[in-house]
Order: sequence, then C-alpha cells, then structure tokens
Amino acid sequence: MRAIQVARYGERLKLKNVDIPKFNPIDQFLVKICYAPINPSDVYYVKGLYGLRKPLPTIGGFEGCGIIAEASDKSLIGRNVMCWADDSINYGTWADYFPVQKQNSIILDSKIEHNNQFDQYCSPFINPFTAVGFLDIVRKLNAQCVVLNAANSAVGRMSIKLFNNQNIKTIAIVRRQEQIQNLYDIGATHVLLSTNEKFDQELVQTIKQNKAKVFYDALGGEYSGLIFKNLENSGMLVGYGRFSNNKINDIDPIDLVFKQKEIKGFWLSKWYEQKGSEEQQQIKKLVENQITSTFSTRIQQTQVPDDDNINELIKLALNNSGQGKYVLDFTK
Amino acid sequence: MRAIQVARYGERLKLKNVDIPKFNPIDQFLVKICYAPINPSDVYYVKGLYGLRKPLPTIGGFEGCGIIAEASDKSLIGRNVMCWADDSINYGTWADYFPVQKQNSIILDSKIEHNNQFDQYCSPFINPFTAVGFLDIVRKLNAQCVVLNAANSAVGRMSIKLFNNQNIKTIAIVRRQEQIQNLYDIGATHVLLSTNEKFDQELVQTIKQNKAKVFYDALGGEYSGLIFKNLENSGMLVGYGRFSNNKINDIDPIDLVFKQKEIKGFWLSKWYEQKGSEEQQQIKKLVENQITSTFSTRIQQTQVPDDDNINELIKLALNNSGQGKYVLDFTK
Repeated sequence: MRAIQVARYGERLKLKNVDIPKFNPIDQFLVKICYAPINPSDVYYVKGLYGLRKPLPTIGGFEGCGIIAEASDKSLIGRNVMCWADDSINYGTWADYFPVQKQNSIILDSKIEHNNQFDQYCSPFINPFTAVGFLDIVRKLNAQCVVLNAANSAVGRMSIKLFNNQNIKTIAIVRRQEQIQNLYDIGATHVLLSTNEKFDQELVQTIKQNKAKVFYDALGGEYSGLIFKNLENSGMLVGYGRFSNNKINDIDPIDLVFKQKEIKGFWLSKWYEQKGSEEQQQIKKLVENQITSTFSTRIQQTQVPDDDNINELIKLALNNSGQGKYVLDFTK
Repeated sequence: MRAIQVARYGERLKLKNVDIPKFNPIDQFLVKICYAPINPSDVYYVKGLYGLRKPLPTIGGFEGCGIIAEASDKSLIGRNVMCWADDSINYGTWADYFPVQKQNSIILDSKIEHNNQFDQYCSPFINPFTAVGFLDIVRKLNAQCVVLNAANSAVGRMSIKLFNNQNIKTIAIVRRQEQIQNLYDIGATHVLLSTNEKFDQELVQTIKQNKAKVFYDALGGEYSGLIFKNLENSGMLVGYGRFSNNKINDIDPIDLVFKQKEIKGFWLSKWYEQKGSEEQQQIKKLVENQITSTFSTRIQQTQVPDDDNINELIKLALNNSGQGKYVLDFTK
C-alpha cells in the first residue's frame, strides 16, 4: 500500500510502498482510507515537534475517513467510517490502510453517497473534539464569554459555532479584515482585528463588558498577558495547539493569587483519554450529528499525494490554512 | 480597648480607643490578644492591596496569640490560644480583644508559661498553614523535589523544614550569601545564591538533576520562566504572597500543552476554606505539635504599639523581615 512515511523526524517525507498493516480484530477495524487532512498538529508530528514521538519509521496523519475493509463483525465491512490515531499504534492515516482502535472511530450512516463530498468527513477528531474540550472547560468554570485568537482557524470556527449554539459569547481575534464578516456570519459575538490601531483598548473594553472568563490562546505573544489580566476572577488562559514561537509574557502574580486565575494547556489526546467510555460515546454522537454543520471542515485543496507534492502540501498546510484544509486523497 | 484601625485603605494607621467587640458565644471565643505579628500580608491588607477588602473602619492583623477571655464553655476561660481572622468578621488581631471563630483557633496546653516566650505562638496561621498547603500540592503532584525563592522568608524556612521532614528535596534560592549556611542548617537540599555569576546555569542543572516539579514563586520576575521551563512534566508554578511588582515572563506554551505544566496561585484562606472540618483539625494538630520546631517563628522585635511607632514598624516589617518578625505586644 501507499504510505507517507517518516524515516527520521524533520526529514523530507516520502511516499513509500509498504505492507498493509496487520490488525487486531478484537480491538480494531482495518480502514481503507479515502481522505486524510494535513493538520498543523500532523506537521508538528512529522517534524518531531509534537508532544509525542513514536518509534521510527512511522506513518503521518492523525485522522481521516474511509471504508471499513476488515472487521470481526462482517456486517460492518463496507461501512463509511471516520477514524483517528492514538498513542498506542504506530500507524497514521496518510496511507491506503489504517488499523484503527474501535473506540477511535465513528461509523457513519451507510446512506452517505461516495461522491466527491466524502472528503468533508476527513476531520472528525482534532478540531471537533478540541472544540468540545473547550466547551468542557467553559462549563467547569461556568463562563458566559470566552476569548479566542487565531479565530479563523478550523478549531476557532468550530468553537465559535459550538459556543454560539450554547449561548456562550465569543470574542474572536483575527489578523485580517476580510475574516471579520465571515466570523460574524457563523455566530461570533464580537470580532476584533488585531492590526487595528486601537486594538488594545477595544480588546480590554470588550473583555470587561462581556465578563470573559476563558482565553483559548493559540499564539502566545504580546497580548496574552493583557487578555489574562482582564479576564474575570477564577478565569483561565488555555494554551493549545498551533503555536507561533511566541512566549507568554506579562503575567501578574496578583491575578494568580487574589483573582485565582490559572494558566494551563489543552492537550487533546490526554483530555479524551481521561473521559470515561460513556462520555466518549456522547462526544462522538455529538460530533457525528453535527459533522456537516457545527463541525464542518472547509477544504482548500484535495490532492492525490506523490513524492513531488507531499512536502510542498505540508508547507502550504502550515502556512496557508486560512482558506481551509489541504486534504490527501487515497481514493485514486 | 486599643486597636490599630484602618480608617481608609492606604492611609497612615492610628492607635484608637474603641469598644471591646461583641462576640457570638455559639461560634466564637473572645480572645485577649497578647502578641500579634506584622506579616507582609497584613501590610498589603491595610494598604488595600490584599485580595480582600472589608468595610471600613477595620482593624489590622490576621493572626496572634492570647488568652480566652470569654467563652460559652467557662472552663476554657484563661486558656492560652492561637487564633486568626477569616473573611467573615471585620475585626483584626492588632487590638486588645479579638472575637475569633472557634474553628480559627488552636487552644494550647495550659502548662505553657506566660513568660516572654509566649510571643513565639503569635504566628500560627499565615506561614505554617501556607507551608502545609504547599505540602498538599507536592502530594497531589507526587513531586520529589521543589524550588522555593525568597527562601529565607518565614514561609520559606517553614516549608524547607516541613519538606525535609517528609523527605522532599528543596532547592532554595536566596539573595544573600549569609543566608546560605542558615538554610542548609534547617534542612535545605540545595541553596543557590541568585547573585552568583553562574546562577542561571547552576539553577537549570540543579532543577534537572533533582527532577524538581513544583516552583513556589514569591517574586515573579526574570527567573520564573526559566524555572518553569525546566520543571518536570506535569509540574506547577505556584505564585503566592509576598510579591515584588515583577511580572512572570517567558512562559513557553509548549510546556503548557505537551508537558502539561500549570501556573496557579496559592491563596491561603481559599485553600483552608475548601478543606473539610476533619482535615482542618488534622492540620491544626500538626501545626500545634510543631509550633516551636518546624513552624517556629524568628522574632526580630516585640514592641508595644503607639501612634508614633506603628507606621514605622509596618515599613520595617515589609522591607526588613530577613531577620524575623516584628511583633506587636498588647500585654502592657
């Protein structure tokens, strides 16, 4: 089968011809992958910059969608499935076949047509589950309003929609004028442009007026301290994912002690592992039901991978994702 | 009675003659205060810089020791007692009489002589309970080594002794050469001088070698980020108390997400309130048993307060506490 293999972390990737993985029918399905996205976290992983390194050689790709090719329950063979990797297996979804742990899959209604819309189902986990994890934090802290930066990212957009459904207000920070209306259209309460001359002032005022309590910080850098400072008491800065190299600065210890604010990180796989299987089922059901609405993925380009385009696509996926995902096509 | 009253937060304090407070015999004892320390948190409180402001006029002083003057159980009258304030009453210990909530007192063995050593019992809460709270965090995180800055402070010294009793290693950071041996003498594992030329290097090396996991940060400033960066995975920066105006800088989001480290504050009264009454009893017993050993207080000066010396003593207590506490004497 074809597989995008990582021989050494950080090296150029190659499309290799490798054996179809063995699968364990008790715990796993074998999935014929149709589409797999290139997420920023995938790129960090293949570069060796992710929180986790697996033994080499390894295969890239944390998630995708496809068809069940092998299963102990034969009636499932041929069903459409969304699936994702976890820390326990050394396979990725950037390949023709992927052995998925059963609990890391969502089997879809068999009526979905295999037309060219099926790539819409390729991002079931990284972004949707992160948005659900963000909602989890909001509920624990009983927050009424949150701040998101890099708000036009996939996870930013899904979070805005999910929070809007739950009547949680969002203050969305973007870096480009043309993203503003777009985020209002999907339900953002306030959209602020960080390049505005009076951004600092607007930001502080909007946070205070709306009593924002949680700040999901994808960027770090100069505004993190300012936003943290202005959050409600018992508020939280939640660092996640898709960083620039910026550090978080200007944290006032008074906020930590007397305002009982906290600074934490959100690591999707740890969060999901800690959930009981019943709650995991509920989350999967929620994502399945809203995969084409709240959790819909904008796709910029779907490409059959080859040795020539794969490294270029990875670069584009990291630096040019504002218009949507780059998706690898394993159907052809 | 005499009372050091705060008419407006931040104004000069005055020794006033006020009515002896009424007390509620169901929940309270009335204590004749003998000795009450001037802690940094007291100074922040009277300046209006503490996390909590009570209605004015208010009386300063969070803790002290004295004699039970009134109680529903008459057999307790005359007993020595250590006591502290909480958020529910608008009285402080910088006065002849203090109505204490029963749960905020430790009644002492009646055999303690009322000689001039009784001022040793004036600091039962702020520092000892903070040290116990620090141990609580160490246990939750299963840490084997911790870092303390401003380590020659009362709470620093008590923490070093308490951790040493529990075989938890301590890396103590001080700013003066003469404090080094002193902290080794009470059980510090490593004492580092922050004015050393190679301090950064020593610090990183010592943290890594000892796998330090918790950093109790009383100062903020340039080293906070460096220490946080080098803590073990799932480690924690705990901000507390006695700050300079320094901010915490240079926090790497990677540490938050993929190393699952956290930044929190420790607010003594919130921590203590959250404990059940059984655990509160255990903590009080621990502090009582070790009040002249692990939790002993170094006293620099014990003074009868008057209008002339009180503001001066407060200044000294904040800026010159390296040799021990300034204590107010209400016995004369």
